[in-house]
Amino acid sequence: MRVYPDCIPCFLRQALEAARRVTENRKEQREVLSEVAALIPGLPMDATPVDMGREIHRTVNAVIGSVDPYREVKKEYNDRALLLYPQLKQRVKNSPDSLLTAIKLAAAGNVIDFGVGAKFDLSQSIEKGLREKLVGFDYALLKERLEQVEEILYLGDNAGEIVLDKIVIEELVSREKKVTFVVRGKPIINDVTLKDASYVEMDKVANVISSGCDAPGTTLRYCDSDFIETFGKSKLIIAKGHGNFEGLSEEDRPLFFLLKVKCPVVAAELGATVGSIVLRAKVKGKM
Amino acid sequence: MRVYPDCIPCFLRQALEAARRVTENRKEQREVLSEVAALIPGLPMDATPVDMGREIHRTVNAVIGSVDPYREVKKEYNDRALLLYPQLKQRVKNSPDSLLTAIKLAAAGNVIDFGVGAKFDLSQSIEKGLREKLVGFDYALLKERLEQVEEILYLGDNAGEIVLDKIVIEELVSREKKVTFVVRGKPIINDVTLKDASYVEMDKVANVISSGCDAPGTTLRYCDSDFIETFGKSKLIIAKGHGNFEGLSEEDRPLFFLLKVKCPVVAAELGATVGSIVLRAKVKGKM
Repeated sequence: MRVYPDCIPCFLRQALEAARRVTENRKEQREVLSEVAALIPGLPMDATPVDMGREIHRTVNAVIGSVDPYREVKKEYNDRALLLYPQLKQRVKNSPDSLLTAIKLAAAGNVIDFGVGAKFDLSQSIEKGLREKLVGFDYALLKERLEQVEEILYLGDNAGEIVLDKIVIEELVSREKKVTFVVRGKPIINDVTLKDASYVEMDKVANVISSGCDAPGTTLRYCDSDFIETFGKSKLIIAKGHGNFEGLSEEDRPLFFLLKVKCPVVAAELGATVGSIVLRAKVKGKM
Repeated sequence: MRVYPDCIPCFLRQALEAARRVTENRKEQREVLSEVAALIPGLPMDATPVDMGREIHRTVNAVIGSVDPYREVKKEYNDRALLLYPQLKQRVKNSPDSLLTAIKLAAAGNVIDFGVGAKFDLSQSIEKGLREKLVGFDYALLKERLEQVEEILYLGDNAGEIVLDKIVIEELVSREKKVTFVVRGKPIINDVTLKDASYVEMDKVANVISSGCDAPGTTLRYCDSDFIETFGKSKLIIAKGHGNFEGLSEEDRPLFFLLKVKCPVVAAELGATVGSIVLRAKVKGKM
């Protein structure tokens, strides 16, 4: 997905929010904003929001000197989601279609996104997600595809949310699928890293690998060669969240994007409404 | 009032909204955004949002070539407010303190602002304004000051809103005050110009002059010398809206700022809440 004009004011908002996490000094905040603004005129027309997100957070870190301003909030949301885990597992177990319920939960959990600048309530998002009338939700196609594969590549997105991803993965594992869960290469915003995967014990249910990507999403040119090879060979890829959608929507791979829509631009790109949960197959027919 | 870090993303939003009024071409929109972004690093620490507002709209006009993208919406809101005028006059007349009611209406009318990027409903703002529990509303001080002067300088802000300003001015005229109503020097956003003043027949109740300012507010360095002289001599100045507040809040003059607070930055500066109406004397004691 290319940068929309609407993304540009949003980039500066994102830069300011990240700067504020590490300094109250307005002069430093202005410096970050100036450096990020200076990047705008040189932004290629085919850049994705993930490319710019990467530059924004590199700038924040270079100017202010923090490498992980979201560390505490990531732990907080991992802990919150872990607290919810037993009751969510129970709801999945008691539901008529446990995989569908788990997928809806994981999409609802994608609300935990400190990049988009909106306030959120995890429990509210979960209740809404479970009740939501699903529109353009390619679950039947995913089920069909799952019948044909043994291995699934699952691209994680955010801390906290990862606990809900784990519930989906447990459902997949109980169906005798082998899952590889992918995290970012470095801390960026509240995106998951190896540390989060370990904290929530994702490694007990999935093979956990890093994409090597230091952007808030997945863009292949920033990923390491091992991941690119794995990605290229995968027969079924579930990609969570805005950042993975923004960076991979133009890749010709068997992708299912699973996310909660949190901004008008992603909503326009998906033909969905802000606040809805979406499961969208990249290729509608045979993949 | 100086530019806050929060103003910077907002400048780009404002530029994009203005660009969208004249072109659907995303490349042109991106060009406007790039040019405005390029101004950010050079923005002096003591610049006001009005200074930058001026640059934004000059850039939009230079890149896209329109001189008045808000012309139609200005007429629309002048017409809407003119339709409301008879019933609002009646409500003022029937109220226990007609001047106070008129002032509250004029503050509520300041919601008609196409610079701040929020949706609004004029009628709702009026009903809310009339019911509002006024906090830090320097009406007693204004009344006291009105006793001591014969002439009032009234700085207008937006089209549509000007009709509600006229109701205040009619109240002042009925108290034998002489009012000079000030408009911007050129069309910018939906700010009032001589054309709007003439359209709503402001000239029948007040002496109408232009500040010469081509910014979306009043900043003396962009005003013409006649206005600066008038401003310097005035013993009581009512300044409407965000833009006049932002540009004049540091001037040491007998100013009363009358506005509806529409953004968190102006709210912080005034110690008020977003959505409230404010009448604030620049100097609390004797002026």
